[in-house]
Amino acid sequence: MTKIAILGATGYTALELIKLLLRHPGAEMTALTSREETAPVGTVHPSLAGKLSLSLENLTPKEVAARAECVFSCLPHCAGAAVLPELLEVGAKVIDFSADYRLHSADTFKEWYHCDHPDPARLGKVPYGLPELFRKEIVPANLVANPGCYPTTAILALSPLLQAGLLRTDDIILDSKSGVSGGGRKPKLGFHYPECNESIVPYGVGTHRHTPEIEQILSIAAQKPIQVIFTPHLTPMDRGILTVAYTTPLKKVTQSEILALLADFYKDEPFVQIVESLPATKDVAHTNHCHITARMVRDRLLLISVIDNLVKGASGAAVQNFNLMFGYPETTALL
Amino acid sequence: MTKIAILGATGYTALELIKLLLRHPGAEMTALTSREETAPVGTVHPSLAGKLSLSLENLTPKEVAARAECVFSCLPHCAGAAVLPELLEVGAKVIDFSADYRLHSADTFKEWYHCDHPDPARLGKVPYGLPELFRKEIVPANLVANPGCYPTTAILALSPLLQAGLLRTDDIILDSKSGVSGGGRKPKLGFHYPECNESIVPYGVGTHRHTPEIEQILSIAAQKPIQVIFTPHLTPMDRGILTVAYTTPLKKVTQSEILALLADFYKDEPFVQIVESLPATKDVAHTNHCHITARMVRDRLLLISVIDNLVKGASGAAVQNFNLMFGYPETTALL
Amino acid sequence: MTKIAILGATGYTALELIKLLLRHPGAEMTALTSREETAPVGTVHPSLAGKLSLSLENLTPKEVAARAECVFSCLPHCAGAAVLPELLEVGAKVIDFSADYRLHSADTFKEWYHCDHPDPARLGKVPYGLPELFRKEIVPANLVANPGCYPTTAILALSPLLQAGLLRTDDIILDSKSGVSGGGRKPKLGFHYPECNESIVPYGVGTHRHTPEIEQILSIAAQKPIQVIFTPHLTPMDRGILTVAYTTPLKKVTQSEILALLADFYKDEPFVQIVESLPATKDVAHTNHCHITARMVRDRLLLISVIDNLVKGASGAAVQNFNLMFGYPETTALL
Amino acid sequence: MTKIAILGATGYTALELIKLLLRHPGAEMTALTSREETAPVGTVHPSLAGKLSLSLENLTPKEVAARAECVFSCLPHCAGAAVLPELLEVGAKVIDFSADYRLHSADTFKEWYHCDHPDPARLGKVPYGLPELFRKEIVPANLVANPGCYPTTAILALSPLLQAGLLRTDDIILDSKSGVSGGGRKPKLGFHYPECNESIVPYGVGTHRHTPEIEQILSIAAQKPIQVIFTPHLTPMDRGILTVAYTTPLKKVTQSEILALLADFYKDEPFVQIVESLPATKDVAHTNHCHITARMVRDRLLLISVIDNLVKGASGAAVQNFNLMFGYPETTALL
Repeated sequence: MTKIAILGATGYTALELIKLLLRHPGAEMTALTSREETAPVGTVHPSLAGKLSLSLENLTPKEVAARAECVFSCLPHCAGAAVLPELLEVGAKVIDFSADYRLHSADTFKEWYHCDHPDPARLGKVPYGLPELFRKEIVPANLVANPGCYPTTAILALSPLLQAGLLRTDDIILDSKSGVSGGGRKPKLGFHYPECNESIVPYGVGTHRHTPEIEQILSIAAQKPIQVIFTPHLTPMDRGILTVAYTTPLKKVTQSEILALLADFYKDEPFVQIVESLPATKDVAHTNHCHITARMVRDRLLLISVIDNLVKGASGAAVQNFNLMFGYPETTALL
Repeated sequence: MTKIAILGATGYTALELIKLLLRHPGAEMTALTSREETAPVGTVHPSLAGKLSLSLENLTPKEVAARAECVFSCLPHCAGAAVLPELLEVGAKVIDFSADYRLHSADTFKEWYHCDHPDPARLGKVPYGLPELFRKEIVPANLVANPGCYPTTAILALSPLLQAGLLRTDDIILDSKSGVSGGGRKPKLGFHYPECNESIVPYGVGTHRHTPEIEQILSIAAQKPIQVIFTPHLTPMDRGILTVAYTTPLKKVTQSEILALLADFYKDEPFVQIVESLPATKDVAHTNHCHITARMVRDRLLLISVIDNLVKGASGAAVQNFNLMFGYPETTALL
Repeated sequence: MTKIAILGATGYTALELIKLLLRHPGAEMTALTSREETAPVGTVHPSLAGKLSLSLENLTPKEVAARAECVFSCLPHCAGAAVLPELLEVGAKVIDFSADYRLHSADTFKEWYHCDHPDPARLGKVPYGLPELFRKEIVPANLVANPGCYPTTAILALSPLLQAGLLRTDDIILDSKSGVSGGGRKPKLGFHYPECNESIVPYGVGTHRHTPEIEQILSIAAQKPIQVIFTPHLTPMDRGILTVAYTTPLKKVTQSEILALLADFYKDEPFVQIVESLPATKDVAHTNHCHITARMVRDRLLLISVIDNLVKGASGAAVQNFNLMFGYPETTALL
Repeated sequence: MTKIAILGATGYTALELIKLLLRHPGAEMTALTSREETAPVGTVHPSLAGKLSLSLENLTPKEVAARAECVFSCLPHCAGAAVLPELLEVGAKVIDFSADYRLHSADTFKEWYHCDHPDPARLGKVPYGLPELFRKEIVPANLVANPGCYPTTAILALSPLLQAGLLRTDDIILDSKSGVSGGGRKPKLGFHYPECNESIVPYGVGTHRHTPEIEQILSIAAQKPIQVIFTPHLTPMDRGILTVAYTTPLKKVTQSEILALLADFYKDEPFVQIVESLPATKDVAHTNHCHITARMVRDRLLLISVIDNLVKGASGAAVQNFNLMFGYPETTALL
């Protein structure tokens, strides 16, 4: 039984995490923190009524460390890295949902996130929590940087082909569509129901913070620097991300060969399915799965991938990392 | 050509009103006010880009009066009645979207709206802006109280039968369902997309402020005091209200007789249709129409009515009143 | 390990059932039948890709019986009762999703379902599969009639109060709202996205087949015949049912007393929560839970309950019954 | 007053057309045809109840011609071109919603639509009904090919830049998202509410029939052959199309210069607005407007455009063409 604390437990990723952990035979939640709301968790999240008797509390890192062996941090960027070192020092293992430990360079971090990194010494040493690519590094880690939702779709679809040297590295366009829960639980006009219902709209074109994260991991796969054009869209649905990656093969290749290569790459992965038909976000809603397909259109290769942004794109991946870090079967609570 | 000002032009009812007035050959918008946002209207409401070159302005009542013969007030309750008298004194005609002049009693107003009425002397003398019932009073008026959205559905369905003395007056249950635009444009958790999408929820059970308004007008129709049980629901759609009124007939009556009575009552009304089939809110979306049907179920009579809450439930009704008050054909800009 | 067959596995309730059983440590699916589609289940239901390798097959009852100890029948009414007796005779236990074994009278069945009952001798002897009320009868049963979705909301909310003799039995109005998945997976104009999106509409007013089912079980609770007024609505969301029951107390009673009585009645039930706040269907989406609250409005008592129509309203209830019939802990695969 | 017939009046584009024509002071609808449904139009389309007293009729071309000077054909491809010549011969003017007269080559038509063109002699002589580009040809025409919905977004955004020779012609990617009404009114599993709600999915990747139409018109603008990569998506909303065109400029150019060029190109067009902010489909819902913006991202130029697929993408464009062909002001019934 592993004692677990969740920092910043008012948001949607924390809620999804709690639901997953309630199904986990080895997880015992002992602390839920919030600086703003301190109330029984079933009051803040009515869907937890009668399922979990904890209250949200405003706790210091020390108080958290005294209660938990594993800390999931759902704090915003820069806030997480300001308190997590203290938890690591007293022996807690930490899975961080924010971007704080994803990027390897403090300068790149500052450029995109507009704050000085509170813990720059650790950058570049923290495994990126995508087990399909970095399982070996995750297993022994004390701190894991849980991936962003958009990057997960792009990286899972493109990495095998970039590793195989099949794609031009200067011609990758990512057109992504996300459900509204990706914007968080804080009310804003852009997420107000009558604004975003019955409407699709691009946002953060050329400026979205997941851009450097995608580029960093794809560059590792390709073993050369990659820049991408990334356009996210707000889509009128609760959850789900669909990414279409437009790429140019370096040599003649068939759709079947690409599908076979992908299927082989992920043949032992429980959460990645290579599918023949065009995937819908609904196919993976409320699951930790990623469905990927490929299409040759004229001279371009399209990779199309879908996940649930709150599960494989956030809390499901976190539980997957937790399982690896604490020796539970990787799929526990996730099937 | 009538010069028009709109007070409180940032909200959804104001936006809908502007769109309707853009189609009105006799309407010239000359002022749009807001205390919070002062920007070109096409910036605040992107759907007006290229259609109207006015900016929102923070204007005094005097400044408004200098520019407009007709003022539509979309100010919140108590705020409207604090400034409208000044406009009326200098000769403007006013259509008030708020509840300020709907109730006849300042005490009832205070009980439900929790503020002292700023202009109690006018209460009881202002026509209720439902032309189907109060056309004669509206035509010569300088001030009209535009009806609430829920009351419009309940009153249009029930008044003919109450006037005819057909229903028990102590046994009326109203179960209403509204789209989210009815909650306004200000972001709140309850109207945050991931909260209210894929969910239906009752709210304001027993406490909704439209209750006394419904009761007052139904009591006029029945010529005796009426109390209702009123349950509104927030429904995952942009617009539309559906009300099912559960009533008990005082004597044996058939469904056909009820439908015939209703059809006769509204036979000259351009915006009320008595239909045979069960009406959907989509049947009247983006129109000023109200569809009504009736069903006998065992010993109860169900009246079912639908409107678009932003049109017949707000801005369409306001234009209908404007047409009557300024001598335009009643359906101008509304078909 | 219990071998399980699912009859009629193309629909939404079967899909939900499969997902639940995939999490059940004691369930082994061995047969999925369909007369129309015979293909790998991951082709028919893309969300099962990579999760279950069975194909849909057109099997005879004998072939089904040879493979399964437990049969979940998702066949339509009259079709189920035509083949289930054969399965029961060879020793299979059966959980029937259709209405075939819910009503106690073949005449009532024919009146509402317009077909002669194929197995009238069993009527009245089959437990109604709502464990909260009929657990004792379900445990030893070989055949259980899984409840309808609407009836589950009405019965769980009203039965405790009717058993306590607190309500008038001739004045119960049920206004229910359901997500579209309740209409099944077969395309029809009424469930075509552009028809039912952005719209709410009542249907089956006075004629819905769940009426006699509700009345039968409520009559048992009240120990006297009950008739209800029942109005279902099609609501623009995938899943969820909200029912508001309008009732009249026989004596003065407070809201707190009602809430306390309900809380006491369900104090040992893992899937029923009595809540203070007004429940939304989203609070129980994708769970087997039912949230219930009560409100006194003037002289009426409103009971408000929500479930997920595909889980507690269908497949979750079926797994709950399966657990009871086969000796698994009742909450297995359902938390 | 122009007498108007609509062929194939059961679908969504016909419904939208009827609503627009009801607002047109010069339009008198005299015939609505259907081979399948012959009933009062208010029965087939409940939103027309009380607004139009015509019935759908199964009429021969001769009967249609006897009643109408202008025929809008909403018949499917190949069906339209089989009957429209007969109408043209007797002097009617025709606006065809199908693809039959859009493509200039009968071979290309057959390749994408899989039927022999019934009227190949007219191909290449029929104006493409996009007034912003082909107004001169439309005004005197007897037959106009109303554009496809996706092509309208792509062509309006790209043509000015291709005409100016600013873009590479071998590197255009179109990622489009459409509301479900674009799929028509016939129920199919893919448009069944519980399938496409809460889900986004690409379809027709590399095979969508609007591909050759887009390429033909863009090739005219560029004066050289153009091929595009076109990926449409089904988006969970009733209406709206958003297209992101990914292009590569041939020379260094700024975002401001592109926006200025577009604004200048469309400066006299009432229905095209060049906007600074990222456009949402909701900004143009229920209007005949197209909003376009541009973004430079690294070395790529993104053109982003939105329309309402049923209005500017179909029936609004048709009324715009009607106005031009019959001498009404171009914006009649469209503002």
